[in-house]
Amino acid sequence: MANESTTIEIGESSTMTKRTSHVVVDEKKKGFVAATAGGGYKRGLAIFDFLLRLAAIVTTITASSVMYTAEETLPFFTQFLQFQAGYDDFATFQFFVISIAMVASYLVLSLPFSIVSIIRPLAAAPRLILLISDTVVVTLTTAAAAAAAAIVYLAHNGNPNTNWLPICQQFGDFCQAVSSAVVAASIAVVFFIILIVISAISLKRH
Amino acid sequence: MANESTTIEIGESSTMTKRTSHVVVDEKKKGFVAATAGGGYKRGLAIFDFLLRLAAIVTTITASSVMYTAEETLPFFTQFLQFQAGYDDFATFQFFVISIAMVASYLVLSLPFSIVSIIRPLAAAPRLILLISDTVVVTLTTAAAAAAAAIVYLAHNGNPNTNWLPICQQFGDFCQAVSSAVVAASIAVVFFIILIVISAISLKRH
Repeated sequence: MANESTTIEIGESSTMTKRTSHVVVDEKKKGFVAATAGGGYKRGLAIFDFLLRLAAIVTTITASSVMYTAEETLPFFTQFLQFQAGYDDFATFQFFVISIAMVASYLVLSLPFSIVSIIRPLAAAPRLILLISDTVVVTLTTAAAAAAAAIVYLAHNGNPNTNWLPICQQFGDFCQAVSSAVVAASIAVVFFIILIVISAISLKRH
Repeated sequence: MANESTTIEIGESSTMTKRTSHVVVDEKKKGFVAATAGGGYKRGLAIFDFLLRLAAIVTTITASSVMYTAEETLPFFTQFLQFQAGYDDFATFQFFVISIAMVASYLVLSLPFSIVSIIRPLAAAPRLILLISDTVVVTLTTAAAAAAAAIVYLAHNGNPNTNWLPICQQFGDFCQAVSSAVVAASIAVVFFIILIVISAISLKRH
């Protein structure tokens, strides 16, 4: 700029080059800053995901073991018959114990993927794997919880139309244990929904 | 290099500028091509999503109406009693009809969001809304299907431990209709899982 004619040309072109390179650097810096900020908030989400998984493991193991150990023997019996109720008297409760135990194992196996998400918060692959498998497993959990809930409802209220009598009047403790297991499984379903929402938000482009 | 001659300097700097601008244009073009390709494949996914939603609407309406109209009156009756079975004799089946009808209404309401995804395949917001609401609704669908399945199982097999007798020997047609409704609801659950996977893949950054 200080000189004339040819020098002006030099000045212009060099300024343009500088400006272009400056813009490129600036955009790189912006991208880096955005990535760091996105990474930070996504890392926070990943840590929350990990903690939720731990809570869900505790909840599902509790649900499965409470259902497994639910048993009640009535204090009176005849010569041939002892009145006893256990989870294995109901096909639905057996399904509940098995599927909720499977869900607990799945959650333990999913922890490494969650840890990978904490270490590399911008990686999409582990997030996608977690989201898809969580979606499949949440239906299994819900199915187990809902089926058991339907039977618990029947055990409490019976159905006069089909002459299915309520058994909870006799087996009160058993019914209470089974109901607790269903409640625990329902809490696990809520955890799963939150986990899926977290994965979805993390997958979103910024 | 700077002090050799002014013309060379001009030449060099102008080449550099050209090269820089060329690279910028090239990258812009690349970005455009990538966006178009990503948009195309995401538009395909969005159209598939829309068609799946239509199929799910048909499935859920079928499930709900089959369950609602399931009724059987036995050809014999006493003076005071007519033997009849309907969906409203079972609390679980009432829950099924109401919740699956709600799911069908939700699916109709979700169609506009799906259409927005077709028009703007790269927009993340409608995808995220669909994914989160689909996740909530899939648990409702699964719960209704699983609870009804548990009662259908009981109606077919009974439970000798609790003295709940099977009713399907008498009400065969009723049981068949109810089972079909449960199967339809289960198919809707599978549709929902595919819908969630589609949304997840569409949300993924390329």
